[in-house]
Amino acid sequence: MALIPKNHPRAKSLLIRERLVDGFENGVVAKEGLLAHGRGEAFDYLLGEKTTKAAKKAIKAAASALILAKNPIISVNGNIAALCPKEIVQLAKTLDAKIEVNLFYENRERKKNIVKILKKNGAKNVLGLKPKFYKRIPGLDSARRIVDKNGIYAADVVLVPLEDGDRAISLKKLGKKVITFDLNPLSRTAQTAHITIIDNVIRGMGELILACKKLSGKNDATLRKIVRHYSNKRNLSANILEIKRNLTRRATHG
Amino acid sequence: MALIPKNHPRAKSLLIRERLVDGFENGVVAKEGLLAHGRGEAFDYLLGEKTTKAAKKAIKAAASALILAKNPIISVNGNIAALCPKEIVQLAKTLDAKIEVNLFYENRERKKNIVKILKKNGAKNVLGLKPKFYKRIPGLDSARRIVDKNGIYAADVVLVPLEDGDRAISLKKLGKKVITFDLNPLSRTAQTAHITIIDNVIRGMGELILACKKLSGKNDATLRKIVRHYSNKRNLSANILEIKRNLTRRATHG
Repeated sequence: MALIPKNHPRAKSLLIRERLVDGFENGVVAKEGLLAHGRGEAFDYLLGEKTTKAAKKAIKAAASALILAKNPIISVNGNIAALCPKEIVQLAKTLDAKIEVNLFYENRERKKNIVKILKKNGAKNVLGLKPKFYKRIPGLDSARRIVDKNGIYAADVVLVPLEDGDRAISLKKLGKKVITFDLNPLSRTAQTAHITIIDNVIRGMGELILACKKLSGKNDATLRKIVRHYSNKRNLSANILEIKRNLTRRATHG
Repeated sequence: MALIPKNHPRAKSLLIRERLVDGFENGVVAKEGLLAHGRGEAFDYLLGEKTTKAAKKAIKAAASALILAKNPIISVNGNIAALCPKEIVQLAKTLDAKIEVNLFYENRERKKNIVKILKKNGAKNVLGLKPKFYKRIPGLDSARRIVDKNGIYAADVVLVPLEDGDRAISLKKLGKKVITFDLNPLSRTAQTAHITIIDNVIRGMGELILACKKLSGKNDATLRKIVRHYSNKRNLSANILEIKRNLTRRATHG
């Protein structure tokens, strides 16, 4: 691994970046995942590298929807596995949700490495590896349309962090409630999902687990009200406004 | 290389991305370079993926400063070599400028691969490989402070596309006129350089070559006036304003 100069002003961001690079070395992250993370870094920077008020609202709505779900599932790709494997397992346990490994760039070896990391962090059962349970979903190119028939295919609510736009659209068409993490409020994934958490997953996953624990005692009517009053469109606008504010501030005090 | 679905709406951006991935496969681009490119992609997206008016002004000033230079040099790293090797060589020939390979993450093997690509694209002489010409510049951590004494060390004007902030600061302290390409108008590199071209290098390098050819007939007084009237601060502000405008437009029509 390359040496990060301690006195480098972006050392913190470089250190998080190294987690991805480590994930890449361990065959968990795709090359394209490194690039995608870089895009996220830029938006995180513009958001002030903190969980915005709007993100907290989205997290509350997401927690409510996940608790209300009959059959919730967390879809895991290389980047999310490299960044917060512990949080994925913890969230799945809190919600009694399933976990499925599902990759944009299909690769059996990488899938196995991801399952290994998740199991190392306490996951009991991880779906998405057995071809006999493969099911194709319509509207997507070959490799990307495979899901597990006992996993995503059967779920009512799907948490797909750091997802591609096409897949978010397909899952929505299949009638799933789609919840995602995305740092770009303008991306198709962000605009497509029912609930988009505009936050760094390293910060946001912890907040989501906390919210799930906090809201798990509430009755269904209360949770349904939270979901009903949440507007993803309004939430994305609030995040865009936050970026514009930061741009103004940094341009002035830079 | 991974298969890019033809009907993917960001296919063009994905294809440019694959150039970097190819460069990575060929030992030219560092893993960290893939991430850095991702950050650039995000800002390019926010800038509307076009050369802004402000960028054109910066290109004109950069061309003037480079033509006026007694000893201009182009500093080349893995990303710029992977993205536009032909343009680097062409620009060096137009300006009678030197080329030096200079990496943030020092790596002898990678340096050699970069030199190979540049020579394949017509470069005669590439500096930065011979330890007997190494010279340390103050204010930087070990590996990053090495430059060639006949190259960057001796130059008066340095074009350092896609550079790290620390190095841009050090070069400026050494008394060099620093010109850079950077897609983030808020970055330290962008804020430090004398002339920052906020543009994708794939678009901007071609424009810079054209500007150098067009301005090469002008007399020194004219060129000096162009440089004198250029304000980098004002230019960066104009680019930030452009991003804010795009955010407003996309948020409304998204």
